[in-house]
Amino acid sequence: MFEIKTNTGETVLSEGETLLESLQKAGIYLTASCGGKGICGKCKVRVAQGKIRVNSFLNISENEKKLGYVLACQSFPESEILLELPEKLITVTERISTAKVDVVYNFFKKNPTLLNPLVKKIHIKVQPPQLENPEGDLERVKKALGVELLFSREFIELLPEVLRENNWSLTVVVTQKEVIDYLLSGNKLYGVAVDIGTTTVVVALVDLEKNELIEFASCYNSQILYGDDVITRIIYATEAPRGLEILRRCIVDDINALVNTLTVRNKEGRVFVICIAGNTTMTHLFWGINPNYIRQEPYVPVLNHYPYWKAKDAELILDSQIPIYTIPSVAGFIGGDIVAGLLACQMHNEEDICLFIDIGTNGEIVVGNKDWLIAASTSAGPCFEGSGISCGMRATQGAIEAMKYDKASDTVELKVIGESKPIGICGSGVIDIVSELFENGIVDQKGKFIPNSSKRIRFINEEFAFFISDNCYITQSDIDNIVRSKAAIYAGVSTLLRELGLNEKDISKIYIAGGFGEFLDIQKAVKIGMLPNLPKDRYIFVGNASLTGAILCLMSSNLLKIAEELADKITYFDLSSSKRFTDEYLSALFIPHTERERFLS
Amino acid sequence: MFEIKTNTGETVLSEGETLLESLQKAGIYLTASCGGKGICGKCKVRVAQGKIRVNSFLNISENEKKLGYVLACQSFPESEILLELPEKLITVTERISTAKVDVVYNFFKKNPTLLNPLVKKIHIKVQPPQLENPEGDLERVKKALGVELLFSREFIELLPEVLRENNWSLTVVVTQKEVIDYLLSGNKLYGVAVDIGTTTVVVALVDLEKNELIEFASCYNSQILYGDDVITRIIYATEAPRGLEILRRCIVDDINALVNTLTVRNKEGRVFVICIAGNTTMTHLFWGINPNYIRQEPYVPVLNHYPYWKAKDAELILDSQIPIYTIPSVAGFIGGDIVAGLLACQMHNEEDICLFIDIGTNGEIVVGNKDWLIAASTSAGPCFEGSGISCGMRATQGAIEAMKYDKASDTVELKVIGESKPIGICGSGVIDIVSELFENGIVDQKGKFIPNSSKRIRFINEEFAFFISDNCYITQSDIDNIVRSKAAIYAGVSTLLRELGLNEKDISKIYIAGGFGEFLDIQKAVKIGMLPNLPKDRYIFVGNASLTGAILCLMSSNLLKIAEELADKITYFDLSSSKRFTDEYLSALFIPHTERERFLS
Repeated sequence: MFEIKTNTGETVLSEGETLLESLQKAGIYLTASCGGKGICGKCKVRVAQGKIRVNSFLNISENEKKLGYVLACQSFPESEILLELPEKLITVTERISTAKVDVVYNFFKKNPTLLNPLVKKIHIKVQPPQLENPEGDLERVKKALGVELLFSREFIELLPEVLRENNWSLTVVVTQKEVIDYLLSGNKLYGVAVDIGTTTVVVALVDLEKNELIEFASCYNSQILYGDDVITRIIYATEAPRGLEILRRCIVDDINALVNTLTVRNKEGRVFVICIAGNTTMTHLFWGINPNYIRQEPYVPVLNHYPYWKAKDAELILDSQIPIYTIPSVAGFIGGDIVAGLLACQMHNEEDICLFIDIGTNGEIVVGNKDWLIAASTSAGPCFEGSGISCGMRATQGAIEAMKYDKASDTVELKVIGESKPIGICGSGVIDIVSELFENGIVDQKGKFIPNSSKRIRFINEEFAFFISDNCYITQSDIDNIVRSKAAIYAGVSTLLRELGLNEKDISKIYIAGGFGEFLDIQKAVKIGMLPNLPKDRYIFVGNASLTGAILCLMSSNLLKIAEELADKITYFDLSSSKRFTDEYLSALFIPHTERERFLS
Repeated sequence: MFEIKTNTGETVLSEGETLLESLQKAGIYLTASCGGKGICGKCKVRVAQGKIRVNSFLNISENEKKLGYVLACQSFPESEILLELPEKLITVTERISTAKVDVVYNFFKKNPTLLNPLVKKIHIKVQPPQLENPEGDLERVKKALGVELLFSREFIELLPEVLRENNWSLTVVVTQKEVIDYLLSGNKLYGVAVDIGTTTVVVALVDLEKNELIEFASCYNSQILYGDDVITRIIYATEAPRGLEILRRCIVDDINALVNTLTVRNKEGRVFVICIAGNTTMTHLFWGINPNYIRQEPYVPVLNHYPYWKAKDAELILDSQIPIYTIPSVAGFIGGDIVAGLLACQMHNEEDICLFIDIGTNGEIVVGNKDWLIAASTSAGPCFEGSGISCGMRATQGAIEAMKYDKASDTVELKVIGESKPIGICGSGVIDIVSELFENGIVDQKGKFIPNSSKRIRFINEEFAFFISDNCYITQSDIDNIVRSKAAIYAGVSTLLRELGLNEKDISKIYIAGGFGEFLDIQKAVKIGMLPNLPKDRYIFVGNASLTGAILCLMSSNLLKIAEELADKITYFDLSSSKRFTDEYLSALFIPHTERERFLS
């Protein structure tokens, strides 16, 4: 038994298993897209000190080898080790947001008849064959089922042995249209919901028999390497050599790594279905479909409604016949994530007019009620997702999610996720900080630092920055970025409302979605002019509503069907061709706005 | 330009292309399952003399290399060459049997409404996208089609570019349920029908727009290496390491090579669909499905009715989404070949009772009419297909298909296919020869040579043999084999009729199917006691009815549907559990039979 010390200050015990497994046992999850087979090369770590036995150096360059890089899944410590972990780790949480889990449970408590998972188990007793009846095994299974279903090839291949070994009595796993697999006794029936965000990927593992959410895992979308927003990704996919395949592989590897992390932790079950929500570009990239025409007027996708495709079609490391359901899109810039989000809020059942704003790398806005829904999209950039700014990070342990500034003492009070040492700033922290800086006269209406307003303003990397802690700061370019982002969102909302002849006061509820973590101070978002100035009680923060919607669909074929209808019902409004949007955007490039009266409460 | 001389006496010109292509141009078709990419190693030939440049020796052992073996697809002559061709070559014919081609054309002349190929082309004009309508490309194609169809992934992947390059106007290829591909302008729409026999594989290339049969290609089933009949193949598949995969690969390689040979010769079109007929074991092996339980009582297959599977599921070298239809089976020993054969004879529409006998490696027998059909199977062995006897060969060029013996002069007169030098004996020749030898007192009633009855009887390989020509002979074991085979068929027929309380005289028509070539002397088959003794005009020789049926289904979705119903309608009778069959078989081990009166006309 040896100790493994990490550069992040943790100590893990090695008991003869691989580095990857030792870290997993201690709750440190490297991305291992191939499931630890030594193939994908993603679980690369650097051994800074200590002796290690390595089985394979596949995908490690000669130079990296000299520097001490190894594949964690192929390495066995032979002394105490000092390890440098990669920046990209997977976060596992029991509940990402209490609200979200409750939304799911409450929904099915209210609508128990809708609890109807995308896959189910059925027990059948099959008539044994007789000399007088030469029907095939499959034909006898069909009779036992009594309903017309398709059968996966994988099911048929195993059928003769499984039937005879189980004495003609089987538990099969079925979708609405197909018998996909067998459920071995004692094995739990799991499903996975996925939100593919431009910046972040989150998966939820769900027990589809008990109808319980088990765990969540998340990581950055590896495509970030190839561009911050959907437009740069589309350009990379269509112009770089093998670009589409590279981006497809990124997201498939991420999902493989996330699902693998959760299944390693939950070995009692097997994943039999996946339900995916993502924006139109992300779902195109996930399925390897050319997204080129999404960015060219008239901005249409190749498809909004996805066929019944399988894990093998996506090259996920699950069993090849596992169905992958994709929540349908509305248009090139209104994706399945928004359809899922509306479903999570049940906005399509509301009597009064509501507003839905999903703040991610794109900002999508939907207005409407049970009779009509109109959607628009604006490019916000990734800064509310903890990317694209100097010290940005996702809403995980160590992220500053709120800041209180005391002008008199020039000190800050921080709220850090996990109550640990701050290591970065997540989306809600970004909003909080800008609001506090403006409120306290450290940045002006244009978002520029006011010289000498705080000792915490220092010069770093050729520009001014406000230091929140030793290692966390926000620069002038970060703030410029944030102002542009919030302006895009606000301008989108106000343009859409005005184009529809609506006043902000007409809105009865405003659903705010986004991967901000548990906490978002709506008042501060209003204060910086990101959200319209309405009574606080009209705002409902719904967190990652896309994931919530994907979980709901995973647990309910009926809801997935509603999603298919909803996608066709929503009308798309193109902001980019609206003259009013440009005006609104330019006016919103101030804190809170050029027309201050809009923000007087 | 160099001359290539072959060990079979042909001279071919090399004009800078590969050996494979030079031979192809001259009508000599090696099996090249990978289509000449240098991967499969099947087009191996030996260069006995001459200089040759070779690009790759993949799949050629060091030892073979020393002996002069090369891949024909990777080799370029650099001098005059003397070439040793492999034994297994592909035969290409314009018409395998005139009768068969006529059956197809006559059928559709009589039933024009049934002409409804498994794939069709449809021309559509798609609405170009507009800013106000964010529907995806696929959704607009759906609207243009106006019918609910599935779409292959391959179709969707190419869709955005194809739509725009063709100015929103497309010709698509569709099955009854799916849009599978595009038809480029000037490209013909081809389909392929396949008969997978235990001994021989035959394919037909069909123009599905003009509804014309183009060409046929055939070769031995490569599985022969692993056993002569279905039982030994099943044993190999289930007991040898990777046996099932080896046998699956054999038949897939054969079909790839045959289809490739025909598409190289007919470059104006593309193959968009395949329809396969074969016995139950062959179809199981083709699809990689475990055939083990077919040989164990109660002899049931894994499945009789096959799902909508694709070229990729079979690993055929066609485009991955090409659908492969399999004609359904009835039971473990009554396969899709028999269902196809009945369809070819239209026996399921007959008022009077008919008999269908398919003489292949299995002998299948069906009795019935439009109201009922009962089928049985008996193991005949491969000797009527030109295998399993000393000088056996398929009914191709050089095969003796008939023999007349003159007792006085002890001479023979031969009918050889292609009127060339005899190189072997095909199925019809086997029947002719045994009948002549018996008639002329050279073999006795037990099928044993009568010493000194002819100077042509010589001792070879430790047994007596009758020499038909210098190099073609028939041995005592060959004749024993043939007697057992004919006994199995006759006993099958007579048992089934007697079990049903029928007399041979009750049969209005007897359809004889089998790969005998153009010619089969029914009277001689009766004379040796293989077929019941009925007026000659009740016999109808239908040749390879399985292939004819597969062609009919390829050209008619309606007929394929009828085949599905027919497979369920036919009752299976198990001869192996019938005491009467054993008695009948033992009585039939004589020429023509122990009860000679059955054969007195």
